[in-house]
Formats: sequence, C-alpha cells, structure tokens
Amino acid sequence: MTAFVCPAPIAVQDTVLLGHGSGGKLSAALLQQIFLPAFHNPLLSRLEDQAVLDVERGRLAFTTDSFVVKPLFFPGGDIGSLAVHGTVNDLAMGGAQPLALSAAFILEEGFPMADLRRVVDSMARAAENVGVPIVTGDTKVVERGCGDGVFINTTGLGMVAAGVDLSAANARADDVVILSGSLGDHGITILTRRQGLELEGVIESDSAPLHTLVAAILAAAGDVRVMRDPTRGGLASTLNEIAVQSHAGIAIRETALPIHDGVRGACEVLGLDPLYVANEGKLVAIVPAASAEAVLAAMRRHPLGAEAAIIGEVVARHSGLVTMHTPFGTTRIVDMLPGDQLPRIC
Amino acid sequence: MTAFVCPAPIAVQDTVLLGHGSGGKLSAALLQQIFLPAFHNPLLSRLEDQAVLDVERGRLAFTTDSFVVKPLFFPGGDIGSLAVHGTVNDLAMGGAQPLALSAAFILEEGFPMADLRRVVDSMARAAENVGVPIVTGDTKVVERGCGDGVFINTTGLGMVAAGVDLSAANARADDVVILSGSLGDHGITILTRRQGLELEGVIESDSAPLHTLVAAILAAAGDVRVMRDPTRGGLASTLNEIAVQSHAGIAIRETALPIHDGVRGACEVLGLDPLYVANEGKLVAIVPAASAEAVLAAMRRHPLGAEAAIIGEVVARHSGLVTMHTPFGTTRIVDMLPGDQLPRIC
Repeated sequence: MTAFVCPAPIAVQDTVLLGHGSGGKLSAALLQQIFLPAFHNPLLSRLEDQAVLDVERGRLAFTTDSFVVKPLFFPGGDIGSLAVHGTVNDLAMGGAQPLALSAAFILEEGFPMADLRRVVDSMARAAENVGVPIVTGDTKVVERGCGDGVFINTTGLGMVAAGVDLSAANARADDVVILSGSLGDHGITILTRRQGLELEGVIESDSAPLHTLVAAILAAAGDVRVMRDPTRGGLASTLNEIAVQSHAGIAIRETALPIHDGVRGACEVLGLDPLYVANEGKLVAIVPAASAEAVLAAMRRHPLGAEAAIIGEVVARHSGLVTMHTPFGTTRIVDMLPGDQLPRIC
Repeated sequence: MTAFVCPAPIAVQDTVLLGHGSGGKLSAALLQQIFLPAFHNPLLSRLEDQAVLDVERGRLAFTTDSFVVKPLFFPGGDIGSLAVHGTVNDLAMGGAQPLALSAAFILEEGFPMADLRRVVDSMARAAENVGVPIVTGDTKVVERGCGDGVFINTTGLGMVAAGVDLSAANARADDVVILSGSLGDHGITILTRRQGLELEGVIESDSAPLHTLVAAILAAAGDVRVMRDPTRGGLASTLNEIAVQSHAGIAIRETALPIHDGVRGACEVLGLDPLYVANEGKLVAIVPAASAEAVLAAMRRHPLGAEAAIIGEVVARHSGLVTMHTPFGTTRIVDMLPGDQLPRIC
C-alpha cells in the first residue's frame, strides 16, 4: 500500500479521474473519503506502505485472485462481495481460517464514484461478515477505454490449524465425493444478466464465504482429504484437477447432482452443461468412506450445505479421468473445458 | 490461486484468448507453458488454491500493489521487474525482508503471447535476483478494449526483524533526512518513452529492489525512524505524508538534491518539477542526527546508495508542512501534488 495523507482534503469528484491514481491530493481524497471509512481498522489506519501483523509459529496460507466479473452488480452479489468471498474460499479450501485481506483496485477513468462507493461498501460488509480485516490496499487509474469500470485484486492470509492436511493430491480409491449444494447458480446468474435474458423462477448467485462450512466439516472428521471450490470451469474442471493430481479416477452419478430447476432450464435453453458452469459458494469435499456420513450430516446442518449430496467416489480405475454415470445407464467421460464457455464470470 | 492441471496439454496460441481465463484446458496450457516454467518453485508447483508457508512467531509485513505502467517495456525495466521491485520495496520500507510474493495477471484478449512470456520471464529473473519465490498466482482475461495488454498485481509477505520499528509517524525534530540517490529517473524515462521524445544523454528507470540497501541501513544504525520510497507523487508527496503523520515539519535544501543532468533537462523542457516525479529504486531515510553519518556512509557503500545525500532536517516549526530552501536564498512550501502529473507511471 502506498499511503496518502492529505494536509488539506479536497472532494473526490463524481467520477474517477486519472488524478485519483497519481499519488497526490486526489488519491488522498479517495483514500480518506471512500476506502478508509468503509474498511476502517487499526492496521489499515496506520497508513504505512505495508501492514504488519503479529503471527504465531505455524502454517500460513497465502492466496491471490483478481476479479473482473461483468456486470459488476448482479442478483446475489457484486464484484465487491465476490472479491472477498472468492479469496476467503481459496484460503478455506486449504483448511485456513482467514486472518487478513489486501484489496487493490484498478479503476477506469470516468467510472461513477457512486458505483465505486457501492462496491467498496459491499466489500466492507462482506469482510465484516467473515470477520476478516482489509489491512492494506492500492489504487490505480487507467484511461477511459483501457479498463472496464473496476477490477479488484484481493489477496488473503490465513492460518491452517495443526493436523489439517488438505490437498488436491490426497484423494484415494474408495474415498467419497461430496458436493455442498446446487451447481451453476453463479454462472447462470451472470450469463443471463449479461445477455438480458428473462428466465422463469428466481436465480441468484451463490456467492458466499465457505470458511465456517469448512470449519464444520473439519470438526466432523479429522481425515478429510481434499476440499476445492468449483469456480471457473465448474465441477468438471475441479474434479479433473483432483483426478490428475491424485493419480486416481473419479466416478460421479448425474442423478445425484443437485441442480436448481431454473439453472437446469437455463442451461437447456442456452446449450450449456451445468458441470462446466461456475459456482462461488460451493465446495467439493473428498473424504474416506468411513467419514462420509458424518461429513454429510455436518454439511447439511450448515446453512451453506443444506443441499449437500454424495455425488460419487474415487476409483482405482481410469487414473486421471472423471466419468459420469447417466440416467440412461451409460457412462461418459467428463473432460476439462476446452475453451471459453463463459468469460468474465468472476 | 486456482490451479489448473491439464490431462492432455494443448498449445497456448500466439495471442491471449478469452479461453485462457476460463479455467479450462487453455488456462492449464498457459499455466504449464508460461507461468510454471518461469516461476518454478516447490510451493507453486503444488498447484493448490493457496500456498502454505511455515512461519515463525513474529511480525509479518503484508503489502499489495497493482502495476499498470505504460509502456510495458522501457529502458531499465518493464512491468514484470517493476511489479517485483515495487512490492519488495514496500515490504523493505517496513524493515521486512521478503518471504514470498503472489502474482495476479489481468490480460487483454489479443495480447501477444511473446510479450507475456517476456514479462513473465523478467518477473522471474527479478524475483530470483531478490531471492523471493512467487508462490501463488491467478490469471484473468478480459475482452479486447476492456484492458490494456497486461496489468499485474503483486502482493508480498516479509518478516520484520525484532527491534525494528519504522513508521512514517516516527520522525522527530532535529532528525536528518537522507535520500539514497537521484530523483526522477523512472518517471522521466516513462514519460519520454511514452511521448516518443528524444533527449540528450541516457536516462533509464531506476527500478531496483531496495531490501539489501535497507538491511545495510538497519545494520548501521539501530534507531532509524522512517523509511519510504518516493514512488507515485515523488519526493514531495512522500515528505508531505511523513510530515503530516509525524506532526512535524520537514525542511529540505534544493541544492542538496541529487538530480541527473538528463532528468533536469527533461524536466525543464517538459515543465515538470522533479520533486513530483516518480522513483522506483530510491528511498528516504529519516534518522536521529547522531546516526546520520553512519547511515549515509552505509548507503554510499551500497551500489544503490552511491549517490546518497543528506537533503534536510525534521523541524519543530511548521508542523505538517514541507519547505525547501532554494538556491536564491528563499524558502518555499513544497505542497502535495494536486492532480495527475503523470498517469500510469507504475
């Protein structure tokens, strides 16, 4: 973070100007009138080039994500809350409870200040809800036509509890694959919103922070092997990554997949496969068979896991491949997404 | 980081496609053919959603910066090396030695893959030179016209040694202000390059990692009060921030400021004040008067501090203001930059 303190504050203006990224008075005004009031916490308020946190000896999780979702505001969330949830979830998938976030903004000249304030306030609420402070930040401004409103990078720190060892390389034959809830809500929300499609039923993004669901899972079973959130590329990509990294096969059952009617209908209309559509508040847990019922029950007791389901197993055959048993009694290979089904989904 | 492992790798193409950000096979190809070979290290190679680092009990510095510099390549560096140096320097200004970096890319559709490779290789060399691993990352792609080639966020972690307490709020009256070298080289390099100006003499960016210079300073004196790198907004903004945060005045002498002839000439031609021009390899150290000579000597022994100079003092009068004694015997107030002297300088 480059800190700006303005001896004689000036107003921030109605839209973002190049000067808001210059390191001078306008930068200071933006910091003092938009960012600091929203993100207020003792570490950020020190306004140093870096936040300094006291840490205990242990395992520190560190993850980064940039967010370029379009549109910026959508049913169930916005780029601000998504930027908090996405990074908290990447920490949580390693079993880490969040410790601190950074927030870096790339703004386009002319972006309405009211929209920026709305995004920043949403980030602040999401972070407060998680209980993680935003302790350091940065703002850059690019000329009109060289960006797209606002891009946000959040980078997260978290501590991994002793004894937790989660990795996409840990799946073993006969493990059980559990999905925490319905597929495709986020991706279909973004896509229909972007294209102005009107669909029956309410579909909204599932964007949510998964750290408390993860804590509930870890409390229910000490031998969880893998947790992953199926974001870009959807469940299919996530399971393929696990299969490759674990040198194992994964076999899922199509009838076991929880998919809301609205999403299923939209996928049919749009010619999309819900296996490849992004989720922002779901996780896949792979656990030894003996722990599956305990983990499933713990997930279902949590609001974000109410629709959790066992969707398949890890198998010794077809190492590195994911297969799906269809309602027609056939089995097909679920490959990785080859190209760009849905750009700018997060 | 979202990790991608491709069971059947495909080529990355000659330019960036939207599919390179989709989380599918093209994303995996980009990771495996561009990022992993350049940044290779054991933590990154685990390909989890987060890197996990073993840390000791202590004070962890955490800082983030996005880089949008234009042009991407310039004499003395490029956006890749700048993204490493900038974040290493923000850690160093807190007295932290770098521990790990994250790297997040926002690519524009159509960006030449050869340029991306050049940027990534430069980042990798810069990080190797510093001795800091890039342990986690992310890539997003936006449509043509919604970005500008490549934007990079780097977020850094470092450990602050026991006993070190640096803060822009620590300056006290009678402290001495030392600048590690010449002003304006980076900003003038970028500006002249962007505008296609031909100037006499060689000017190149001073982009450099300052952590070893900081270590030399801290070894020379245990009572250093403040370190700051005068980047965006230049020396004037940095000193104003320190004056405000320390509730003290700062008085500098114009004749003491090291400025290369080429930069001085360019500033005259362009009507710029070198006090406001960005630097990317310089620092200001504020130290008690008794330690000033030792710190100055230590800086001058270091290649990045060879032109170090005492440029002024902290004063009890005019709290929160910076003044400069001119060669004409007058004294003027050095205000913060009001607007946008040089956009996209870093």
